[in-house]
Amino acid sequence: MSGEDAPAQQQNAVDQKQETKPAEEPKAEPPKTESPPAAATADAAATTEKVPEEETFTYRALVLTGYGGYDKVKLQVKKGKPALKAGEVLVRVKACGLNFADLMARQGLYDRLPSPPVTPGMECSGVVEAVGEEVTDRKVGDKVMVLNRFGLWQEVAVVPASHTFLIPEGMSFEEAAALPVNYITAYMMLFDFGNLRPNQSVLIHAAAGGVGIAATQLCKTVKDVTVFGTASASKHETITEGGVTHPIDYRTKDYVEEVRKISPKGMDIILDPLGGSDTHKAYNLLKPMGKLITYGAANMLAGQKKNLLAVAKNWYHQFSIHTLSLIQGNKSVCGFHLGYLDGEMELITEAMNTILDLYKAGKVKPRIDSTWHLEQVGDAMRKMQERNNIGKMILTTEPMPEEEKKEEPKKEEKKDDKKKDDKKKDDKKKDDAKKEEKKDDKKKEEPKKEEPKKEEEKKEEAKKEEK
Amino acid sequence: MSGEDAPAQQQNAVDQKQETKPAEEPKAEPPKTESPPAAATADAAATTEKVPEEETFTYRALVLTGYGGYDKVKLQVKKGKPALKAGEVLVRVKACGLNFADLMARQGLYDRLPSPPVTPGMECSGVVEAVGEEVTDRKVGDKVMVLNRFGLWQEVAVVPASHTFLIPEGMSFEEAAALPVNYITAYMMLFDFGNLRPNQSVLIHAAAGGVGIAATQLCKTVKDVTVFGTASASKHETITEGGVTHPIDYRTKDYVEEVRKISPKGMDIILDPLGGSDTHKAYNLLKPMGKLITYGAANMLAGQKKNLLAVAKNWYHQFSIHTLSLIQGNKSVCGFHLGYLDGEMELITEAMNTILDLYKAGKVKPRIDSTWHLEQVGDAMRKMQERNNIGKMILTTEPMPEEEKKEEPKKEEKKDDKKKDDKKKDDKKKDDAKKEEKKDDKKKEEPKKEEPKKEEEKKEEAKKEEK
Repeated sequence: MSGEDAPAQQQNAVDQKQETKPAEEPKAEPPKTESPPAAATADAAATTEKVPEEETFTYRALVLTGYGGYDKVKLQVKKGKPALKAGEVLVRVKACGLNFADLMARQGLYDRLPSPPVTPGMECSGVVEAVGEEVTDRKVGDKVMVLNRFGLWQEVAVVPASHTFLIPEGMSFEEAAALPVNYITAYMMLFDFGNLRPNQSVLIHAAAGGVGIAATQLCKTVKDVTVFGTASASKHETITEGGVTHPIDYRTKDYVEEVRKISPKGMDIILDPLGGSDTHKAYNLLKPMGKLITYGAANMLAGQKKNLLAVAKNWYHQFSIHTLSLIQGNKSVCGFHLGYLDGEMELITEAMNTILDLYKAGKVKPRIDSTWHLEQVGDAMRKMQERNNIGKMILTTEPMPEEEKKEEPKKEEKKDDKKKDDKKKDDKKKDDAKKEEKKDDKKKEEPKKEEPKKEEEKKEEAKKEEK
Repeated sequence: MSGEDAPAQQQNAVDQKQETKPAEEPKAEPPKTESPPAAATADAAATTEKVPEEETFTYRALVLTGYGGYDKVKLQVKKGKPALKAGEVLVRVKACGLNFADLMARQGLYDRLPSPPVTPGMECSGVVEAVGEEVTDRKVGDKVMVLNRFGLWQEVAVVPASHTFLIPEGMSFEEAAALPVNYITAYMMLFDFGNLRPNQSVLIHAAAGGVGIAATQLCKTVKDVTVFGTASASKHETITEGGVTHPIDYRTKDYVEEVRKISPKGMDIILDPLGGSDTHKAYNLLKPMGKLITYGAANMLAGQKKNLLAVAKNWYHQFSIHTLSLIQGNKSVCGFHLGYLDGEMELITEAMNTILDLYKAGKVKPRIDSTWHLEQVGDAMRKMQERNNIGKMILTTEPMPEEEKKEEPKKEEKKDDKKKDDKKKDDKKKDDAKKEEKKDDKKKEEPKKEEPKKEEEKKEEAKKEEK
């Protein structure tokens, strides 16, 4: 998918060598995990002979062991094949998506994740390996993408069949893992709350992020929509090619002024993942009949651990609105978070079906920033939190072979070489981002020095997990 | 339109005798006001010969002389033909609509009306009698409906041509005066903010009011929409025939409980004209992805004069919402008021065109509760404020002939007899409402005792107006 990121990731991989070697969970890479993607079926677990499957079945899982920094998410080995209840399917996970809520969750700022230890992860793609009773619309071997409240950052996941969606022809596992959260979020915000129509204007914050790119693509499916997108300057060329009409560098310019220069009356729709004072600005930037859709509090995230000052500031500036102001302004304020919508699979499925139709028609396509091994989840989270990604951050469950750890970033990227042709235009634009990332890599070394000690903890925890 | 209301109005007309006789503005009923509706052209003003038109041109106008009770709106005579600026048209007004905002305005609770003395009135219908320069799409003789921030409760109104809409074939002046505010409000709330779609559920408060009836009809244009409507029991049969699926008597039952019994998950859309604590209830009654659209503060209106306790209570209970609650609930809160949308004629025209198409297709049709002479505006406002109407309250500019004041309610109603056939079903249902109205009439007599004195003030003010 994103072979163009290789140099940056290579650097990551080099960093990784020191930290991940001790983490080579001895029981974590059994033959199962190497079973061929499409043929992965229930009997893959039977490769070890004569021992009951329940005992020999092991799989790697990322586990949030406590709230805090990037190192709190650890790779562990779990043992025993999970039991399936009626209506459930067991999915052999191929790729997982990272979301902003996962970053919030790690800091203890997301209440939809149960207390640690717990496996995070709201979306993944994979192959159905077993189906429970009463499951009629999924069968072993189906390639699916999965949406769940949590628990998908592992090699094997058990979920209700209704939380799975068939992957259409030609969609890679990475794309499939990149699609659910970002596209459903963008779709429901723009077309349910936003009621986006031709000739309207939309302000998209973090336009180079996963939701930002999905929202931009979805805006382009409606005639003559003008998209204003904020992103750091190095990402402007990419987001412009993706459909942003007016990119705005929020780091060097006042985005409110920039928007007013071009559209004095303001915006029809504003997607606000920031919270705090940016929500106030958004509200004031709305046209009459305008819709502000707030879907996060990214401003709360400052640094890798919970920053009480940032949290307090966000609370202090939290937007609160009186109905009289709404009436006099003819405005709408909406809140959206897919994580709180898990009881509404009917709505979600409806949105997903439309999105998949758009995908098949070539109108939307997830943009992968980079793909990381499970061992690299900390670095992946860091890149995302520091806003150095353009598009989706993906984790692959494919094990990191020894030689890759030494030389290459990831196998994933080779597989995706054939897709490069579509992406050539994007390649150059990433250069700037890569430079930023290199600077970033230097920063990364600090926390990593602690890693080796932590790896011992990890092993102990893994043992506990095995009971 | 509403010949079926005759008995009730007759009673009103009887009441009226005592109070309106002294109000027979001597200069208020010149031949002009009796000019035939369709033929009313600029030269109608030329019936008085040899004296310059500017001096002889007089017209009756309702004027809010100060904030307070029903008697604060007085009928005055204005002199001098208003000048037309470029882009404006002069409309000979035939009928005017009453709106809740007019009631608020009389009490000093609506900031879109300039300070008294001022002519209220946000909508009317009539005939174009003169066009200003640069007006290309309206001509003398055009039958139009008009939407304006204020100033339409008079026999002659000057408005921007862009604020007029051609009346379609077959629509009466009363219907045309009943349509703009209620239908545009209902339309924009349901289809812009509400994004109403098939199979959804909508709670409509005051379902027998002007907006309520318009909203119900518009809901029925979408497949399988379930409408919950609150109204007093006597109105249930009428609103049920109009399209309300589940009528709820809010006077004897807890509407929240009633809604939950039928739809435990709550509502997709709630239209809230009440404000205060009802807005809180509405918010809690929303489904995930639900939209609360608040468009008034009817709860503030208690009695005919400003009730400070009611206002304070409304403010105290005023709904205020934090974004975090919106996000966790996946909810939308919108505010709407057409009075604050007067800069957005493009949006309004778009909505109006769709509504007129629906009218032509027979899908929507304003329901007139009753038509009143300008002299009767106080009674009309009272009926509306006391929630005794089913549908729209209309004022007609046709003068009240002596014999009518003694015997008949109004000429208007005779003209509409031919339309009765469409309405036969509605006739019976109004009986209950009429009974209520009779009770009401007794109450009316109290304030009317003051009237005769006030009429003298009125004459004096009329003289001042003439300068």
